[in-house]
Amino acid sequence: MAAELGATLDRLWRVIASRRGADPQTSYTARLFARGRAKIAQKLGEEAIEAVIEGIRGDRTKLVGESADLIYHLFVLWADTGVTPTDVAAELVRREGTSGLGEKRSRANL
Amino acid sequence: MAAELGATLDRLWRVIASRRGADPQTSYTARLFARGRAKIAQKLGEEAIEAVIEGIRGDRTKLVGESADLIYHLFVLWADTGVTPTDVAAELVRREGTSGLGEKRSRANL
Amino acid sequence: MAAELGATLDRLWRVIASRRGADPQTSYTARLFARGRAKIAQKLGEEAIEAVIEGIRGDRTKLVGESADLIYHLFVLWADTGVTPTDVAAELVRREGTSGLGEKRSRANL
Amino acid sequence: MAAELGATLDRLWRVIASRRGADPQTSYTARLFARGRAKIAQKLGEEAIEAVIEGIRGDRTKLVGESADLIYHLFVLWADTGVTPTDVAAELVRREGTSGLGEKRSRANL
Repeated sequence: MAAELGATLDRLWRVIASRRGADPQTSYTARLFARGRAKIAQKLGEEAIEAVIEGIRGDRTKLVGESADLIYHLFVLWADTGVTPTDVAAELVRREGTSGLGEKRSRANL
Repeated sequence: MAAELGATLDRLWRVIASRRGADPQTSYTARLFARGRAKIAQKLGEEAIEAVIEGIRGDRTKLVGESADLIYHLFVLWADTGVTPTDVAAELVRREGTSGLGEKRSRANL
Repeated sequence: MAAELGATLDRLWRVIASRRGADPQTSYTARLFARGRAKIAQKLGEEAIEAVIEGIRGDRTKLVGESADLIYHLFVLWADTGVTPTDVAAELVRREGTSGLGEKRSRANL
Repeated sequence: MAAELGATLDRLWRVIASRRGADPQTSYTARLFARGRAKIAQKLGEEAIEAVIEGIRGDRTKLVGESADLIYHLFVLWADTGVTPTDVAAELVRREGTSGLGEKRSRANL
């Protein structure tokens, strides 16, 4: 059930948002914010590569772990850039009614 | 509010899961399943690259769009591999109480 | 023989460098320069993802094709950023005598 | 001069090829082969992400370093998969006379 994922992501987001500007000594997340945008984006890219690889290999346990890492670093990038989960939810809702995802899918149903 | 994101992701997951095995003519998602695992993983990787780039550039509107694409393709990869949102939620919960995310963070708090 | 690769890359570099500032109508390379740095970097990232996937799958023919695409787009990024093959050759030579590649390998031989 | 790059890549390839099957204790490259294809491909993907980021940031010195890392790991992936520099050179030559690079460019000149 994605409901469970939703509630978990809600907590994850609040934790991450609360770490902005915190002492880098106190948590991994605060340390990541202190290292800056390029490092956060790099980590997101690295976790995505690992998710791609585990997906291809079909290793479900590792794909679960890499997916958790991917979502975590995506949320940190959102927080650092000023994007909120509401922004992304609104974008997903906007696409529901119309044409699916991405410019190449403009005439396709989701 | 991540609550809105949670509910939106719940709907997104149900739509994606319902497209497995559907006629590729009927939707972009069904077509993507038909193209196979490697193509799905490739799309995930491409959307991640775009999110990384828009994060670095600080373009919030584009980062929102790329994030929506990234989450969508991640969900399709989950569905194709047999991973569920519950699996990933359980992994995130497991990390909450202990040591944060990833092997490098084993002694750090989230 | 990498010698053949060297001579081929020499020609490839000269062609790419000559396309900077050329009319975008005249060639794919000129068009790519006209689309700008972010698009060039995005293409590099996409080709890398495809090389990663074909490497994992062990498809040699496709890995050859993706590697050609990867090197081509890397050269375009160099030309757009002001990096030359000589710069990269000098960096590779610098590493030969010392410690291998990358910060994690500072105590290791190549 | 790409000629210098060509000669340097020739030496790099010979060193890498000679490390296949060597004792992992003796070099970083032998250790990387021992870790297997998925790890090699992952490293290639990570270095590509870093090259993309430094390209976008316009940091020439870092782009040079990441490019050296990228080429090195690409060569290790070739060696592990059974691809040779000659294969890739032949593919690049094949494209010179015809239509440029990639399926989307089939009607364009390079």
